[in-house]
Amino acid sequence: MTPTLDDIHHAADRIRPYVHHTPVLKSESIDKLLKARIYFKCENFQKAGAFKSRGACNAVFSLTDEEVKNGVCTHSSGNHAQALSRAARLRGCKAFIVMPDNSSKVKIDAVNNYGGRIFFCKPNLKSREETLSEVQKKMGAVEIHPYNDYRIITAQGTAAMEFLEEIPEPDIMLVPVGGGGLLSGTALATRYLSPKTKVIAAEPAGADDAYRSFYEKRFIPSTDPDTIADGLLTSLGSLTYPIILQYVDQIIRVSEGSIMNAMMLVWERMKIIIEPSSAVPLAAIMENTAKFSGKRIGLIISGGNVDLRKLPWN
Amino acid sequence: MTPTLDDIHHAADRIRPYVHHTPVLKSESIDKLLKARIYFKCENFQKAGAFKSRGACNAVFSLTDEEVKNGVCTHSSGNHAQALSRAARLRGCKAFIVMPDNSSKVKIDAVNNYGGRIFFCKPNLKSREETLSEVQKKMGAVEIHPYNDYRIITAQGTAAMEFLEEIPEPDIMLVPVGGGGLLSGTALATRYLSPKTKVIAAEPAGADDAYRSFYEKRFIPSTDPDTIADGLLTSLGSLTYPIILQYVDQIIRVSEGSIMNAMMLVWERMKIIIEPSSAVPLAAIMENTAKFSGKRIGLIISGGNVDLRKLPWN
Repeated sequence: MTPTLDDIHHAADRIRPYVHHTPVLKSESIDKLLKARIYFKCENFQKAGAFKSRGACNAVFSLTDEEVKNGVCTHSSGNHAQALSRAARLRGCKAFIVMPDNSSKVKIDAVNNYGGRIFFCKPNLKSREETLSEVQKKMGAVEIHPYNDYRIITAQGTAAMEFLEEIPEPDIMLVPVGGGGLLSGTALATRYLSPKTKVIAAEPAGADDAYRSFYEKRFIPSTDPDTIADGLLTSLGSLTYPIILQYVDQIIRVSEGSIMNAMMLVWERMKIIIEPSSAVPLAAIMENTAKFSGKRIGLIISGGNVDLRKLPWN
Repeated sequence: MTPTLDDIHHAADRIRPYVHHTPVLKSESIDKLLKARIYFKCENFQKAGAFKSRGACNAVFSLTDEEVKNGVCTHSSGNHAQALSRAARLRGCKAFIVMPDNSSKVKIDAVNNYGGRIFFCKPNLKSREETLSEVQKKMGAVEIHPYNDYRIITAQGTAAMEFLEEIPEPDIMLVPVGGGGLLSGTALATRYLSPKTKVIAAEPAGADDAYRSFYEKRFIPSTDPDTIADGLLTSLGSLTYPIILQYVDQIIRVSEGSIMNAMMLVWERMKIIIEPSSAVPLAAIMENTAKFSGKRIGLIISGGNVDLRKLPWN
């Protein structure tokens, strides 16, 4: 059943001790350049560097002592892996993380730092799922999916809820879409709290499964995605897709060049570090200035975890 | 005559409409790593990306209409050039900036963006001074020195004043030293407002003229400085040096490797962009953990202007 506003409030209450209420920042120079009023909700300053800490904490702290006694597990090479490792440590349980054996050292180190125990697999979905299934059986751990889970969706919606309490009734809420956890949570929170606000998603053209699924009205999985926005490679889920179909107004695709330009613009003008996936919504504004001109826009910066030795412009 | 607390207050009042009251940030993970409580005063979020906007605005808005009618001028390739260009535009006068002809495109663009008019010179002090002298004569502009000017020193002290109002009586105020504008302003503000707080400066070992001048008690100019901290290349001034001698407790030298590591640590853990010069104080803590252990430290992040295509670790 579609999560209610109460569900989002419950998630917010549950995670409050464990996550940051992140700041909303503005940039006069970016506003001037793009002729819009953009409010950046900075989840790059979130614990473990991304909004994923919201969902991971909500899921882990929803479990009973009995349920967590053998730990939690997931397959992820990205921000969910770090967020789940951290949430498990806070809950006092183990986290088993299945990661592709070609994951970068910086991602492996991050999971290790948060105390997650890593199991390597081959870098394909089949191996990830098989390895996770083995780990789960062997350890008796509970799987926490990165997005296809209402506990995750409601908690990701708390970022938009915080935002709308601070900046009421923006014209547009603009977020990136990968698996759809942040997008579906944002869409629900916005419909409940600011029903006149349009919810728009931005997606790399090189990984446009959500765009096609949305407009063709049939589920199309992500195959061979090719984008620097490494947080947006996955397919929508069976729980996120229907919410997106019903509550999202539009999905915009953007080019790789625009993603890189948007990322550099934020680094240079705002002096904050955002990851490529977080630059995708701003890229959508930059590619469609007329559409966004004069609008008050809430833009969720999803995360700030970047391998500083491998920047897209180098 | 040494500026008084009133002078710093007057500077604060004068610049208030034109500069940001910048935030103080903390990082749990850096505190844990270094076993200290570090409060980062984030002048990287200052207008034009550095504390230099404080001094430039104070100097430019101290001038009479008659004095500014032919504009202001300086020689600088760095943050003072941008800050002065911006301050002049706000004051409605011209800024003439003498820059070495090997300045990076990103620095030239920044000055142009703020409306400064650039005059190129050869990349040595003699050519800079001669070109500035010519420009000054030809244009009738008023020179605004980047640091050897009480209007600049008092205004740079407003960053520490803001800090001490927010975080009273830290054990240590820790700032980088180049020409000494920020250091002398910080030292004065701290002595007036929090006399028990130690004032410590950090300097690259490859540009340690302030260190040597301080401990040998005779002025030693900066010759052939070699450091990635490109804001800290200059010599102390005749006004900054005596204040530093009298009011600073200690100067610590740091290695280039530590500067780079400190810069990466802040980028990775705090998700904010700081320039190499701003990483020098944190490098001093990292090289002297026992000394700083358990201390409450106010650390001024001087700026965030970095050429993203030329990062020190690439």
